Amino acid sequence: MQFSITILGCSSAIPTKDRFPTAQVVTYGNEHYLLDCAEGTQIQLRKYRFSFQRISKIFISHMHADHFLGLPGLLSTMDLLGRTSSLQIYAPIEVIRFIESFKQLVYANFQYPIEYHIIEDTFEGVIWENEQLEVIAFPVKHAVPCHAFLFKEKLQSRRMKKNAITDYFLSIEQIKLAKEGKDIEIENGKIIPNSSLTHSAPHPRSYAFVTDTAFYPEITNLIKGVDLLYHEATFESSFESRANQTFHSTAAQAAKIASLAEVKKLLIGHYSVRYEDLNILLQEAESVFNPTELALEGKKIVLEYDSRTENT
Amino acid sequence: MQFSITILGCSSAIPTKDRFPTAQVVTYGNEHYLLDCAEGTQIQLRKYRFSFQRISKIFISHMHADHFLGLPGLLSTMDLLGRTSSLQIYAPIEVIRFIESFKQLVYANFQYPIEYHIIEDTFEGVIWENEQLEVIAFPVKHAVPCHAFLFKEKLQSRRMKKNAITDYFLSIEQIKLAKEGKDIEIENGKIIPNSSLTHSAPHPRSYAFVTDTAFYPEITNLIKGVDLLYHEATFESSFESRANQTFHSTAAQAAKIASLAEVKKLLIGHYSVRYEDLNILLQEAESVFNPTELALEGKKIVLEYDSRTENT
Repeated sequence: MQFSITILGCSSAIPTKDRFPTAQVVTYGNEHYLLDCAEGTQIQLRKYRFSFQRISKIFISHMHADHFLGLPGLLSTMDLLGRTSSLQIYAPIEVIRFIESFKQLVYANFQYPIEYHIIEDTFEGVIWENEQLEVIAFPVKHAVPCHAFLFKEKLQSRRMKKNAITDYFLSIEQIKLAKEGKDIEIENGKIIPNSSLTHSAPHPRSYAFVTDTAFYPEITNLIKGVDLLYHEATFESSFESRANQTFHSTAAQAAKIASLAEVKKLLIGHYSVRYEDLNILLQEAESVFNPTELALEGKKIVLEYDSRTENT
Repeated sequence: MQFSITILGCSSAIPTKDRFPTAQVVTYGNEHYLLDCAEGTQIQLRKYRFSFQRISKIFISHMHADHFLGLPGLLSTMDLLGRTSSLQIYAPIEVIRFIESFKQLVYANFQYPIEYHIIEDTFEGVIWENEQLEVIAFPVKHAVPCHAFLFKEKLQSRRMKKNAITDYFLSIEQIKLAKEGKDIEIENGKIIPNSSLTHSAPHPRSYAFVTDTAFYPEITNLIKGVDLLYHEATFESSFESRANQTFHSTAAQAAKIASLAEVKKLLIGHYSVRYEDLNILLQEAESVFNPTELALEGKKIVLEYDSRTENT
């Protein structure tokens, strides 16, 4: 199952000629989940060839303009493109009110239903799940209530070893039991240990999207060991007091969180307009944590299964 | 005085990877006037290096989403950039309500004043003027009330011929009278005819912005002889019935308007998403009217003074 993250925008509040404000696509299997939806998101979705129809859910971190202003345009275009399937929006109440006031003012009557899910200011927990995946929201520390989102794959069943089914003439029922980790008694009464039949399930993959927050180590337990952590890094350390004032983080602070949480990889973004060259932020983060990458528009990071767990 | 038009967006409602929806900058002297403000306009303004501070007025043609959704982001960024000078917005009441509801929902308290000027549905006339320029709004024919905007330079005073001032030892008062077209009596009692002192004023330049309208020849008198006519050309002629249904124009209809109004040049835009190659629209228009140009992002057209009038 593909599990990937694509950056659509990585600027902080003021966009630059090369950087749109925040939006990302998490792709899991055939579905796209949109994380924040800044102005211009629909243009970036077209540029990077994402099907609007395959976006089933949108998650908005907080009600600052550079994180949700792309919604009215995206929702209108979805309607113009003939969407009929429902769209789920998880967002603070202010954002939901904004969409509704827009629809009312332009007399928009979309042909598809929007289902709103209000994220309460202090809510922490699962906001959506299916058999493979769950999305957990938890508060971070910003000037207004703001949530991070953790995409966590669920533990899958064990995987059959090559030829096990044919070697032992396993029935569908036996395959099901083997995948659950059971030993299997075959026709001649012999017990085949599960380790001869299956590999352990791959280690569940996870992605944490942490934007618009001051340094907030309280979150490290929640994101412990994730495969990829996106953490905002608006400033370099010499602007740390400015970061504190505006409830943003420095690159070093983002890397410190990555280090405390022992994540596998750090991705920084939400850069202040003052940085034309982003290497200063990358180098600062790398001096604290590796591997670190810069979020850049169009960059796609595929989360691979941990190869060590596949062959046990 | 520079008088130019720069295209920021030329797509119709659905943007493409290369085309943002409608926005243009009219530059006259040191000031920028924004015509429509679709989603992404602030990003395009940065890309084409326009100073946000020099935008004093914004004119919005109508309340369809692809013509005004860039306003909340642009207005927020102006505030973040420290704007203090007032901003004038000329727009239908729905657009003004949209901005106000946005400000209220995000608790925005901008440090600069916004002055709203409601354009009533059927209003026709001057909506703003100064000594050099006037802007006239007039209704076109669309699914909702929609206005075109005509930027008309005022007739300037006559221009002094080279050396006339020194040859005849003219006083400031005499120069003023000469510029008004008067003959001047000099010290020895001799009358110097005005034609020896001045050139006629350059022919006033004009630009008409006509978007989102069905074929509507009723406007031709209002835009008679303009230097440049921007006219929407959403479709080619084979989609004329679709154009009629949606109150848009074909390229041939745009050119027909240009021809009836005897404009100097036609600029077409507001292209349907179906056209990857725009030449089909250009060729169709050119078969009816010349010269025609395609609006393309970043294209700047400078309106020059008519050279014939400069030397009379």
